[in-house]
Amino acid sequence: MAFKIAALNYSIFKCSSYSYNYAPENIHVDKPTDQSSRWSSDSNHPPQFLILKLEQPAIVDSITFGKYEKTHVCNLKKFKVYGGLTDDHMIELLESGLKNDHVPETFPLKNEIDCHHFPCRFIKIVPIQTWGPSFNFSIWHVQLHGVDDSDVVRPCMNWYTNYREKEAIRLCLKHFRQRQYVEAYEALQKKTRVDLEHPILTELHNQLVTQGNYDACENLITRACEEGLFEQYISDQEYKPKWTPIEPVSAGSESFDNRPGMRGGHQMAIDLHTETLYLYGGWDGNQDLADLWSYHSPSKQWTCISRDTAEEGGPCARSCHKMCLDYERKQIFTLGRYLDSSMRTECNLKSDFYMYDIENNKWTLITEDTAAMGGPKLIFDHQVVIDIEQQTLFVFGGRVLACTTEGERNSTPQFSGLFSYHIPTNTWTKLRDDCSELRSRIGHSMLFHPKKRILFIFAGQRSKEYLNDFLMYNVDDGRIEIISDGTKKEMTGSDGRSQGISVGPTAGINTIRHFLKDFSKRSVPSAGFTQRATLDPQTDEIHVLSGLSKDKDKRDNVKNSFWVYDIPKSKWSCIYKNENSGQQYWTKMQHIEPVPRFAHQLVYDHVRKIHYLFGGNPGKESLPKVRLDDFWCLKLCRPSPVNLLRRCKYLLRKYRFQELSEVNPQSAMIYLQKDLAAVIDHNDTRETQEFHLLASTLFRSGIEENDSYDDKNFGTGSRNHYDRRTELFDLLVEFFPENMTQPKGNLVDLIPLC
Amino acid sequence: MAFKIAALNYSIFKCSSYSYNYAPENIHVDKPTDQSSRWSSDSNHPPQFLILKLEQPAIVDSITFGKYEKTHVCNLKKFKVYGGLTDDHMIELLESGLKNDHVPETFPLKNEIDCHHFPCRFIKIVPIQTWGPSFNFSIWHVQLHGVDDSDVVRPCMNWYTNYREKEAIRLCLKHFRQRQYVEAYEALQKKTRVDLEHPILTELHNQLVTQGNYDACENLITRACEEGLFEQYISDQEYKPKWTPIEPVSAGSESFDNRPGMRGGHQMAIDLHTETLYLYGGWDGNQDLADLWSYHSPSKQWTCISRDTAEEGGPCARSCHKMCLDYERKQIFTLGRYLDSSMRTECNLKSDFYMYDIENNKWTLITEDTAAMGGPKLIFDHQVVIDIEQQTLFVFGGRVLACTTEGERNSTPQFSGLFSYHIPTNTWTKLRDDCSELRSRIGHSMLFHPKKRILFIFAGQRSKEYLNDFLMYNVDDGRIEIISDGTKKEMTGSDGRSQGISVGPTAGINTIRHFLKDFSKRSVPSAGFTQRATLDPQTDEIHVLSGLSKDKDKRDNVKNSFWVYDIPKSKWSCIYKNENSGQQYWTKMQHIEPVPRFAHQLVYDHVRKIHYLFGGNPGKESLPKVRLDDFWCLKLCRPSPVNLLRRCKYLLRKYRFQELSEVNPQSAMIYLQKDLAAVIDHNDTRETQEFHLLASTLFRSGIEENDSYDDKNFGTGSRNHYDRRTELFDLLVEFFPENMTQPKGNLVDLIPLC
Repeated sequence: MAFKIAALNYSIFKCSSYSYNYAPENIHVDKPTDQSSRWSSDSNHPPQFLILKLEQPAIVDSITFGKYEKTHVCNLKKFKVYGGLTDDHMIELLESGLKNDHVPETFPLKNEIDCHHFPCRFIKIVPIQTWGPSFNFSIWHVQLHGVDDSDVVRPCMNWYTNYREKEAIRLCLKHFRQRQYVEAYEALQKKTRVDLEHPILTELHNQLVTQGNYDACENLITRACEEGLFEQYISDQEYKPKWTPIEPVSAGSESFDNRPGMRGGHQMAIDLHTETLYLYGGWDGNQDLADLWSYHSPSKQWTCISRDTAEEGGPCARSCHKMCLDYERKQIFTLGRYLDSSMRTECNLKSDFYMYDIENNKWTLITEDTAAMGGPKLIFDHQVVIDIEQQTLFVFGGRVLACTTEGERNSTPQFSGLFSYHIPTNTWTKLRDDCSELRSRIGHSMLFHPKKRILFIFAGQRSKEYLNDFLMYNVDDGRIEIISDGTKKEMTGSDGRSQGISVGPTAGINTIRHFLKDFSKRSVPSAGFTQRATLDPQTDEIHVLSGLSKDKDKRDNVKNSFWVYDIPKSKWSCIYKNENSGQQYWTKMQHIEPVPRFAHQLVYDHVRKIHYLFGGNPGKESLPKVRLDDFWCLKLCRPSPVNLLRRCKYLLRKYRFQELSEVNPQSAMIYLQKDLAAVIDHNDTRETQEFHLLASTLFRSGIEENDSYDDKNFGTGSRNHYDRRTELFDLLVEFFPENMTQPKGNLVDLIPLC
Repeated sequence: MAFKIAALNYSIFKCSSYSYNYAPENIHVDKPTDQSSRWSSDSNHPPQFLILKLEQPAIVDSITFGKYEKTHVCNLKKFKVYGGLTDDHMIELLESGLKNDHVPETFPLKNEIDCHHFPCRFIKIVPIQTWGPSFNFSIWHVQLHGVDDSDVVRPCMNWYTNYREKEAIRLCLKHFRQRQYVEAYEALQKKTRVDLEHPILTELHNQLVTQGNYDACENLITRACEEGLFEQYISDQEYKPKWTPIEPVSAGSESFDNRPGMRGGHQMAIDLHTETLYLYGGWDGNQDLADLWSYHSPSKQWTCISRDTAEEGGPCARSCHKMCLDYERKQIFTLGRYLDSSMRTECNLKSDFYMYDIENNKWTLITEDTAAMGGPKLIFDHQVVIDIEQQTLFVFGGRVLACTTEGERNSTPQFSGLFSYHIPTNTWTKLRDDCSELRSRIGHSMLFHPKKRILFIFAGQRSKEYLNDFLMYNVDDGRIEIISDGTKKEMTGSDGRSQGISVGPTAGINTIRHFLKDFSKRSVPSAGFTQRATLDPQTDEIHVLSGLSKDKDKRDNVKNSFWVYDIPKSKWSCIYKNENSGQQYWTKMQHIEPVPRFAHQLVYDHVRKIHYLFGGNPGKESLPKVRLDDFWCLKLCRPSPVNLLRRCKYLLRKYRFQELSEVNPQSAMIYLQKDLAAVIDHNDTRETQEFHLLASTLFRSGIEENDSYDDKNFGTGSRNHYDRRTELFDLLVEFFPENMTQPKGNLVDLIPLC
């Protein structure tokens, strides 16, 4: 929906406190030069707040904070914004912070529920932290933007009223069904025509809770699984990383010759069609390499294509170059290299550019110097990606190698901008110079999303500065969008929670944005230099493996960690972290998990959802020349539908067994040994334990349910079948998509108590 | 209920974060000498928390925080505690802060809802502020106390489950009735047997909303008012102070001679039976006075009983003495005085003690020196109260006058302890010396509650220190209880909100305590020296009039303010505040409101609910000798039942008129002019304005309800009678006691949105 977004008029409705002369009304005007043109609380004791009242209910799109012309200790380092139709029932619209500078900042506000816009009449700003500790909170200027045209707002208001009404009724229906208030349930349903859930779940409830027909339930659940109803649940689960060392099939006696040796600063690329990896060059600790290898994944076979590509008309030995592969045309391109400053000469500082034709096993020198063709100068630690559809390479960043004669050693380093190379016409185009909008860098990540046609650029280093920004470059119109400028302190707590905020990358200026459902799940990987990243255009995810820091001073940072960025949800999650750094630990683990490293290579087969990791520098201070030659496969696992189905069956059979054991311990025993045992996951220790416990209940004197102090049912006495089956039903519906099921919440939990 | 309260076992269930080595489990042990024996968050960014899980559900009575042996920047200056049966549905149990010292602190926790104890399984501690700004939060040791005996907890759990169930059903019933889901309403009510409200309100709903029988409604409401049903509403309203200057009836020509002159440091006492005030002594700016006056309130007549009591065998001229009156036996006692250091001699530093027999107009010197009788030495700025039933005086505090010979001017001031004096046996008893448990002081307040038999002691000064504590001394068993130790920074925001907490004074160690319903209403008067306080044993309230500070440095403090402390609710509220200090303002206002002052006198007639204020020092720097002789009467007003009844009738007639105007503008006009006009409060500008507006709606073309953007009904179109009458019904039930009415909340407002 694209509306005409305009500034919204508001008045000050309420404020927690204010200091003399710093009345809240001051925020109406933007006077960056006036020290006193602000609201200031009278203390820094929470809770402090401002409640603004809009002239009319509106869909509020964004909030802009004006600031003082200089930094100011009273600026809000952290704040929240709430909104609602009344001042006593509001929902959180934003949690963020201001930079301590003079630049006004605009933040999009949550204004959708369930993909519908909702109106607000009141906006509450709650300061949480100031930049100067224990200073009072000041807000200089606030502007709200949105739509208050009643033609737009009225339908939203209608939808919102109906939505709340419907949700209220659904909570009632759920409660009544749980309590077996059949008549009230039916009367309410008949009158309101609100559905509690999808008919398949009503059927499940009937079969399970009312009838106790467990066989029918298993059939229902099986059908649901087959129809893909568990997919949403699965996609909401966190990945679990599974590392497997790849042992190549040895061909012949000299097996070690038949796989690439230790190295760092090499390149890898994958041909998705043939499932073949190509590995080229690198530094083995003593010298640059020029060997080219392929690895055929189905047969687990390494093949040495060339020991020295220079001998075959290809590039000379090199490291810190970049490589990419066009699997449609079976071409590999390689650009850039690192040369020790002592080795540099006028002549070898030219940026040669090669193409390797896989099918014909033939190297072509496209040009001796891309700079002469309008492309980049000789660079290293840059990034190259390929747009296979448009046959275009994108090259961004990297440091330009310069001749270090005449004491130029300390001259300012030069970083290379963004270039494109159109393969069919052999044309270089400079898209951007190194500039403030797109700051060049080394050691960053750049990924091309072939469907969105966007370059994702993040992290990297620029001289002493570690960058932590996250940008999108639209390759078709050259537009740059900042997902996160990285200047906000995005703390990552020990539970992986973050204080930061990332705004949806696809959020346009004039569209009203989708927002994260769960603000607490936002996390970001820390600023990095040696991370390796891949992109999955099917799942719309970016994967980042953070490695060891190249900078020794930073080696106490997080070691191995694996992050997934969900592009549509603008959400980072850390799915794996190993902060161990002891040598003993890693000696023990070396065949189970890759040791932390840098200068390694990671490539991704997004068709088969497999990452490949090879080599790198383990950063051993005592053995600086050691490089790695280990080869790993990484799969990001989520429960499979089959797995979930088994889990559902296990739950059904467990409850069935418990019912059976009350009336007929004999047949319960048989059921346990046969039917229940059949669906146990013997790898799951908890389930196995539970299974053994279940057996033991049979031999107790009588059924002692609730023998322990069970919170849920404490005080309600022993439960009947209906209640227990309801509990099971609630467990089972967790696997179904939320829009099909009864509400998650319970009416009694919403009762305000105080 | 007195249970056996014991320490409760808990485990750490969850924590927001922790710093290396400072794991949350450390809080189990109390090692004040061990720097590292604590939980410490890994940042000071909110939200940080610890969730503790109790071994068993328990009624949690209190929480004790152990501390480090020294002050520590990471100590919690402010925190909250929540509790619940699950970790995702908790309610606030406490908001408080720790002192930055080494002394463990114990806080009672809210554990009652609706006068019933409720159980918790999870306790969440949420740090909000540290003592050192921007330091991480540390908690050294936590102990929880309460009852987890299942014989005690089980019934509470049952009650709690049923309570929540009942409240949920009542919300449903309210919603269904509003929406006219008649069948669902009846089915639910029949099944659950939960009553939505008192039958009289159901009848009101029927007559009003269903039938539209407005006459019957007026009758119902009138009956409710007569039966005292509005009393609770009235008692929940804030007082409004009404000051009236008392113009004494002049007797004869020399009227000014017939009323006491300007003075400060005088004493007043009231005879409740005869409604007569007695005023004695004081300092007129130049000299001490010895005149004794009476003021008969019904006749508004001052009488000078004696120009100089010394001449009649009474005390010599004096100020800063204290006086109290036994209205049963018509006796006035006076003790103590101030003497300028230059005037002191060995001889006149004896503490004489006089009794005045009102009926016989006769002074008796009880003793020349109470110190010689085991009573206090000569003191000033102390407090004396009388227990009329037991014929006992209590004397507390005051500074002992010492002879200032031989350069003793700078010797440590001596403060007097707590004494009792039994009148019939003429016996002095020293109850407490000046000690840490009951620190002596000057300029404090002490009030005796004759029913509770408790002395309430608060505020005052001790050398340079202004005290802000609030204590109870039980006169029968000598037990001291601290309501608030006053060391917590109890900020009072500009809206009168406070961050502090005051714990119920009647809370015993082994009883589980009542708590404030609305934590946001807690406020406390600031530490004071010149406050004047009174106690109403019928309403269980303490009143405090804060005056001008004697200390010139503190004169920029709050000027006049009036506070009421509700003893059973442990709640302070500020009902009046006037921060004006300009001379011009007070010249204009001098006959409307008393100017700020100190050394004045305030007495209270709790039978007629009238305060009397006389004289004092206005603290004019330019005219240091000026004292006041103004005389004021203060009434604390709340709406009367008659007033409320009128308001209800007004509302009923307004809605009736609106209905009428839609069908018959002609008779609506007549109704407006006759019936509606009859119930208008013409002093209420809003009501009067509304009345005029109502008339004008008749002359518009058609009925344009919702012509403005009305939030509530936006999108639902024009409302029918049922909805409008429901709105009126909701307004009317506000005046009824909460336990009689439908729930305040609305189901739709409880729907979680995000």
